[in-house]
Amino acid sequence: MLGVLSAMEALETIAIQNIPHRHPLTAIVWTNEEGARFEPAMMSSGVICGKFPKEKMLASIAKDIPDYTFGEALEKSGFVGDIHNRLTPETYAALIELHIEQGPVLEAEGYDIGVVDGVCGMVNYEFTFIGQADHAGTTPMKYRKDALYAAVKAIQYLHDELDKLDPALVYTTGKISAHPNIHTIIPDEVKFTLDARHYDPAVIKQVLEIIKALPSEIVGCKVSYQEAWSRKSVAYDAKLVSIVEESAKVLGYSNLRIHSGPGHDAQYAADILPTSMIFVPSVEGHSHCELEFTPTEACAKGVNVLIQTLLSIDKQLS
Amino acid sequence: MLGVLSAMEALETIAIQNIPHRHPLTAIVWTNEEGARFEPAMMSSGVICGKFPKEKMLASIAKDIPDYTFGEALEKSGFVGDIHNRLTPETYAALIELHIEQGPVLEAEGYDIGVVDGVCGMVNYEFTFIGQADHAGTTPMKYRKDALYAAVKAIQYLHDELDKLDPALVYTTGKISAHPNIHTIIPDEVKFTLDARHYDPAVIKQVLEIIKALPSEIVGCKVSYQEAWSRKSVAYDAKLVSIVEESAKVLGYSNLRIHSGPGHDAQYAADILPTSMIFVPSVEGHSHCELEFTPTEACAKGVNVLIQTLLSIDKQLS
Repeated sequence: MLGVLSAMEALETIAIQNIPHRHPLTAIVWTNEEGARFEPAMMSSGVICGKFPKEKMLASIAKDIPDYTFGEALEKSGFVGDIHNRLTPETYAALIELHIEQGPVLEAEGYDIGVVDGVCGMVNYEFTFIGQADHAGTTPMKYRKDALYAAVKAIQYLHDELDKLDPALVYTTGKISAHPNIHTIIPDEVKFTLDARHYDPAVIKQVLEIIKALPSEIVGCKVSYQEAWSRKSVAYDAKLVSIVEESAKVLGYSNLRIHSGPGHDAQYAADILPTSMIFVPSVEGHSHCELEFTPTEACAKGVNVLIQTLLSIDKQLS
Repeated sequence: MLGVLSAMEALETIAIQNIPHRHPLTAIVWTNEEGARFEPAMMSSGVICGKFPKEKMLASIAKDIPDYTFGEALEKSGFVGDIHNRLTPETYAALIELHIEQGPVLEAEGYDIGVVDGVCGMVNYEFTFIGQADHAGTTPMKYRKDALYAAVKAIQYLHDELDKLDPALVYTTGKISAHPNIHTIIPDEVKFTLDARHYDPAVIKQVLEIIKALPSEIVGCKVSYQEAWSRKSVAYDAKLVSIVEESAKVLGYSNLRIHSGPGHDAQYAADILPTSMIFVPSVEGHSHCELEFTPTEACAKGVNVLIQTLLSIDKQLS
């Protein structure tokens, strides 16, 4: 939302104030960045950048209404267009996206602006532990195959080992389930996820090595895992990143080079034309919840950097 | 089920074979030992032994049908009686219950018969960890309040500390839940249970001390806990336990003194008159599942011990 409004604010400011520039500027409103109702996320940037087939995306089915397609919802919204633009280096010189950080770093470390130099690569694994369900009151500890205790040992192991890698690595077990999940029965099946993200593919490779080193059996339980999904890291255009950084400096805003943890529409454009992003702080790092907030003044700084960046690119272009 | 059939088999054998005895023998079919449809468990032994008020139990509501009471179900079953017997030392000299072990010890250690000298005491605690939900991809490790990781550390701590206590202690985390339980979000609330059982109240006291020693905060998360339920240990009658043991010996059956982990109808009688139990092995210790099984030959040994015990009591009574 901030991205859309800030792009329009930037263009309106340039237009109203008659700020001289030599090249046309375009605001893009990407549809369905989150993928909450229709999967995948970043659907339309994926189409415009040639990552997803348009027809397949239009046929994507809603999670809440049977057989209701993204194409129908788009039609109903009144925003369906008749031109299928593709981003190409011939038509666009660069793409800049402004976004909230969605994390606590800028606020906690006192920076106005995040100069985003790329998007972290990630892996997401699902682990399964198979033990033996038995009565909690009758089974001596030595006879147990406790899938939950095995999972606890594995999560602690993964934590301990991953902690030794680069401190910028983030990793999370966000999801866990136990079967039969009854307080008087030793669990026979436990599943949990591990999401790990880092900008450097070499670190992600180390993560995979740590996962592979997990024993195939822990406290008598069978351990297995599989990749649920993954994403390679994306490097934004070095020259453009420098322009964003320089723009923040010119405006007197404190700034920090930062990688994005989540994916963004801009990352699909990065394969096609020079791309970068601007982050503004998220209060207490909250995101995707009702507490998500960035004060107007902080947003305005982001828009000022966006305007400055657009004008710098305009100036440097032939 | 085995208890009922074995009691009838024992009485039938004594009757058909005209085995001399001087006192009347009674087989009791307890209704609703499990409490699966109507709570509490061991409902009718509780009433007969004066633990639960009869009218309150008759008013217990089914878990599957709204407003359907235990009283109505009992009426419908055709087994409702019009006499309200109470077990008293004046009317009964002793009570013996035969049951499957529901655990792996007798089979694993090669015993025919478990001579049950009591029922373990137990405590069941529910723990809650409150952290902060944040984006798994944007929140550096040092800024996290990960309720699941805090719970993992606590489960491991409890395991390590409880492991130092008496090896007969059993303890189980059977149930766990995480909120919001999404692989890309750091959990902000995790709950898990701890069930611990031992025959000696002093060991249960040590368990409580270990729980109380849990820090009120782990990796930035607030830790709290409360007792969900508990049960004091029950000692069966020493003389009667010896008679059961002697009966097994006389018959040439290998036997082991054992405490029961789960509760049984007999435990309510133990407060009123001399009581004991006989266990037969459970194959691989499975119970409360489709794999629950004890071979007929093993059941027959249990019945033989029951007969021998009944005749010994009869002989020793004035």
